[in-house]
Amino acid sequence: MRLALIGVGLIGASAAWGLKQKGVIDFVSGFDLNEQSVRQAQTMGIADHVAASIEQAVDGADCVLVAVPVRAMAEVFAHVAAAAADNTWITDVGSTRQSVIAAARENLGEKFANYTPVHPIAGGEMPGVAYARVDLFEGKRAVVTVEDGMREEAVAFWQSAWSALGARLVHMSAQEHDAIFARVSHLPHLLSYTMVASLLHDPQARKSLQFAGAGFRDFTRIAASSPVMWTDITLANREAILQALSVFEADVAQMRRDLEAGDAQALMQLFETASGARRKCVF
Amino acid sequence: MRLALIGVGLIGASAAWGLKQKGVIDFVSGFDLNEQSVRQAQTMGIADHVAASIEQAVDGADCVLVAVPVRAMAEVFAHVAAAAADNTWITDVGSTRQSVIAAARENLGEKFANYTPVHPIAGGEMPGVAYARVDLFEGKRAVVTVEDGMREEAVAFWQSAWSALGARLVHMSAQEHDAIFARVSHLPHLLSYTMVASLLHDPQARKSLQFAGAGFRDFTRIAASSPVMWTDITLANREAILQALSVFEADVAQMRRDLEAGDAQALMQLFETASGARRKCVF
Repeated sequence: MRLALIGVGLIGASAAWGLKQKGVIDFVSGFDLNEQSVRQAQTMGIADHVAASIEQAVDGADCVLVAVPVRAMAEVFAHVAAAAADNTWITDVGSTRQSVIAAARENLGEKFANYTPVHPIAGGEMPGVAYARVDLFEGKRAVVTVEDGMREEAVAFWQSAWSALGARLVHMSAQEHDAIFARVSHLPHLLSYTMVASLLHDPQARKSLQFAGAGFRDFTRIAASSPVMWTDITLANREAILQALSVFEADVAQMRRDLEAGDAQALMQLFETASGARRKCVF
Repeated sequence: MRLALIGVGLIGASAAWGLKQKGVIDFVSGFDLNEQSVRQAQTMGIADHVAASIEQAVDGADCVLVAVPVRAMAEVFAHVAAAAADNTWITDVGSTRQSVIAAARENLGEKFANYTPVHPIAGGEMPGVAYARVDLFEGKRAVVTVEDGMREEAVAFWQSAWSALGARLVHMSAQEHDAIFARVSHLPHLLSYTMVASLLHDPQARKSLQFAGAGFRDFTRIAASSPVMWTDITLANREAILQALSVFEADVAQMRRDLEAGDAQALMQLFETASGARRKCVF
């Protein structure tokens, strides 16, 4: 079975690698705007062919995995639709759902029937094929969003592919997906970026940051994530993120009032609630 | 040389353990409100004697290390002053400086001359003697704050003790210390606690948190920290934290405006600034 991999980064390369190891596919044609990434994937044994265009990668493919920044999806889907056969399964691994599924409906045309999106909850702050791992999705959750117009066979194909990668499949509507990920992923990324940038425009930044300990390094680890990818995610899921931000801002305002009032009991309760949950690893 | 260790937690126990291993001291009398902690330190070979009171621990000690939550320092210093000899060196490892040095001035009386505070930048989110490490301070920074009224010999003693632990000594005024740590430590802790608590009071919390990935876990790791210790730090360094919070709130407000406006360029610049600094590990 031949896979067209469009976007050869951490997630796409890891998925193709794992699918190959599990025998779901046996040939990968890769395309990336940065050809060097595809060549690196070839060196790593992930890609078998360096395609010169999306159309060339998709031509003759049995399945297409789109793993590009979410705002590039619409254009990529249009190219995929032009080259895909009538029985080519199509998927994407984007971090937002409502905007990407809308782009798929608009640009895949009749081939939307062969499409099912799956968002795997895995990765790392370091982007790029160099960090790909064959077992990246083992034991990780993967959110499948099925909507009207997607054929059962397409859903079944991508579900079995992700199951083969060891992912635990979860079904969720596009709206619920976007609300949840705004809270547990997108907003924390925005706040982490903002915290680092905020410190940097302080004239004493260099000195202050020398005293950043392990806690600060953990808190800001996600601020090393890809700016392009996160600009895209942020804009694609803007409404849900703004809602999550409003909730957080209200809670920060309450924390500020408690601190201004020197309310030890309120602060202690806040810290106990949070540390209790964090230590029990409810997440 | 005999050390009185008042407060047998992660930092105090690790310091006593290291000082013993380096031969700076050879006997440790420990006191903690939770006697169990001292017994555990004894089992681990850190404490040699379980004191029934601060006075009993300090009686006959050559040096006293106070490692209790910062708001308990004033009372502890009063007990230390009552039992310490005229040539007993006194220190503390508190995370705030202005409030603790003021407490020392007020409660150590004439023995303030024998006092020099050193704040080591090390630790972890898991508190308690069980997590103590003999090499916890190796290569880590330790902030020494020298003020009028502290004898040169006291400064020299504690500097050499912390140097023996492998710490890199840095001198800083109490005010500068508190402003810097409000930014790189205290505020991030408050925001991390608030983020977890904020998610928990959402009716969908349990479901949302199932989808928290590695990024969220990193971002909220410090929310597992000790509530008592952090209530104390937060209140002791309230003014500097509120100032740092104001700066951060203004930057979040700007980020919100950029997001509302869909300003890809502004968001990209924010993310690039932050990720560039974070990846270069300027901290």
